[in-house]
Amino acid sequence: MLYIGRQFLGGELLPSLCPQRTVLIADVALKMLYAEKLAERLKADLLCIPSGEMAKTFETRSLIEQFLLRGGYGRDTTMVALGGGTTTDVVGFVASTYLRGVPLVLVPTTLLGMVDAAIGGKTAINTEFGKNLLGTFYQPKAIVVDLDLLKTLPEAEKRNGLAEIFKMGLIARPDFFELEFEELVRASIQQKIAIVEQDPQEKGLRRILNFGHTIGHALETISHYQMPHGLCVAMGCVIESHLSMCLGYLSKGDFKRIHSLYEPFQLPAQYNRKDLLAAMGTDKKRAEGHIRFVLIDQIGRAIPFEGHYCRPVAVEELEKTLDWMEATYH
Amino acid sequence: MLYIGRQFLGGELLPSLCPQRTVLIADVALKMLYAEKLAERLKADLLCIPSGEMAKTFETRSLIEQFLLRGGYGRDTTMVALGGGTTTDVVGFVASTYLRGVPLVLVPTTLLGMVDAAIGGKTAINTEFGKNLLGTFYQPKAIVVDLDLLKTLPEAEKRNGLAEIFKMGLIARPDFFELEFEELVRASIQQKIAIVEQDPQEKGLRRILNFGHTIGHALETISHYQMPHGLCVAMGCVIESHLSMCLGYLSKGDFKRIHSLYEPFQLPAQYNRKDLLAAMGTDKKRAEGHIRFVLIDQIGRAIPFEGHYCRPVAVEELEKTLDWMEATYH
Repeated sequence: MLYIGRQFLGGELLPSLCPQRTVLIADVALKMLYAEKLAERLKADLLCIPSGEMAKTFETRSLIEQFLLRGGYGRDTTMVALGGGTTTDVVGFVASTYLRGVPLVLVPTTLLGMVDAAIGGKTAINTEFGKNLLGTFYQPKAIVVDLDLLKTLPEAEKRNGLAEIFKMGLIARPDFFELEFEELVRASIQQKIAIVEQDPQEKGLRRILNFGHTIGHALETISHYQMPHGLCVAMGCVIESHLSMCLGYLSKGDFKRIHSLYEPFQLPAQYNRKDLLAAMGTDKKRAEGHIRFVLIDQIGRAIPFEGHYCRPVAVEELEKTLDWMEATYH
Repeated sequence: MLYIGRQFLGGELLPSLCPQRTVLIADVALKMLYAEKLAERLKADLLCIPSGEMAKTFETRSLIEQFLLRGGYGRDTTMVALGGGTTTDVVGFVASTYLRGVPLVLVPTTLLGMVDAAIGGKTAINTEFGKNLLGTFYQPKAIVVDLDLLKTLPEAEKRNGLAEIFKMGLIARPDFFELEFEELVRASIQQKIAIVEQDPQEKGLRRILNFGHTIGHALETISHYQMPHGLCVAMGCVIESHLSMCLGYLSKGDFKRIHSLYEPFQLPAQYNRKDLLAAMGTDKKRAEGHIRFVLIDQIGRAIPFEGHYCRPVAVEELEKTLDWMEATYH
């Protein structure tokens, strides 16, 4: 069940979703501002976990598991996750495996969490070998999106979330580039739900959500998760749009417009061609020199490729785009 | 897909189930006898993991995860588990979370694995706080039951599996106590599948499979998993049958017959009343002095209790049965 509204943190909704024993697991950065008060309202036991992408680790999984095991929580325990996408991802992962799954309520506190991470039932942790390599598909009992939280969000955090919203615009919603901010948030959530409902396990259509992420994840891996996810995805979207153009699918005009749409993102120049290819999995262990990309043929349309919604691209086909990237972001 | 037959380990079935990259994860005790040959036939990478109930640990989960991550195995990798219930449980758990789930083939090598652990899509590991506290529901692509493996099974292993078959007899199949051994194995697998299909996530009917397990798991916990699962379950079935009688559901005659059916099991006398109650979760952390039991009202019938298929039993209601247990197994 999805709730989008205001004043949820102080209202009656969250207590009504937690009828029995409750565990609140929150990003430690929210401890003083929100978490302690919410725990009190929910009569919940509180566990704070590390902040940021580095929180999606084996260590945090273990921390949460041990907290639950030591507390002897039963099957009727509701787990509430309060934080950004890293918090909801790792808490969701443990919730899906503790006693083979306990009720889960997600309260995303960042724009990125609201429009992307908390929506769609994917859970995960990262490993040194790549992002989201361990995880499950697990639907929460409720997702509670409190739009009031966006008011106090720093600009950098807002851009971080806007990257996924812009991506959604590029693959499915040309109208997104005209909408007012709050409309955009609501529409982006609804659009993601519509796609996920058609393909929950990512056998086809859902793959389009990975537009910008082949390059984006590689950039994140290279930066050891120091570069924000949204910034990496934004850069990935521009570069994969360039690739769509180079391969003859996207017009030059559309690419130019996309490039200018992303100007507010202040994309960084941190990049090494060799590391990037390695991080995309072209090292021997993985593949045979082909990498799969989602591509677009106009603003607002990912190419279906006969239901695969992605296309293998040979390393040689990437050359032009990598040249352009080197020339542009240096 | 379930396959029951003979000569599967050397035949064409298993290679046909592993069309691409394959990882074989086997109980180390089977390394020389079966695992190395099978790995060769499947062109699979082989990982051996510890034997026995102690293998279902955080450490083994971690061992398998690291093996997969280091090997860079992709989504099309088939994981094959070769071993008893502990092997299929822990391998299944990791298979369900690696890249959010990869194809899984279970090859149970013990009677207990064939009739119980490998059937029904439950995966798990144990923790110091109790059995199967972490796990998932995850359906394998195939379960391959090679009846030839039963020929070389030690008597103790056979009894271990017979305990779950007898339990099935007590809750659902009075005819089981008349069948010939191989018929019994096939019928027991089919009966478990029939129950699980009606209630995959254990919201009701499937709970009857836990008959004998409230006491059984407690005995296992107390023994630090040194007592075989089957023996604990057999003992649990006799004791919970006694409880069914004490609470007025089961006739004295039926209980007497059950008690004599279990004579071949040579039930041990290892038991401490206080530890047993603690291990069943009557310590403060868990409950309010009530423990849930599946109960029977005749041989071959678990009591529905209006769709709950279990009934809370107060500690005081257990007294008579605990007295009897002390007098009988000392």
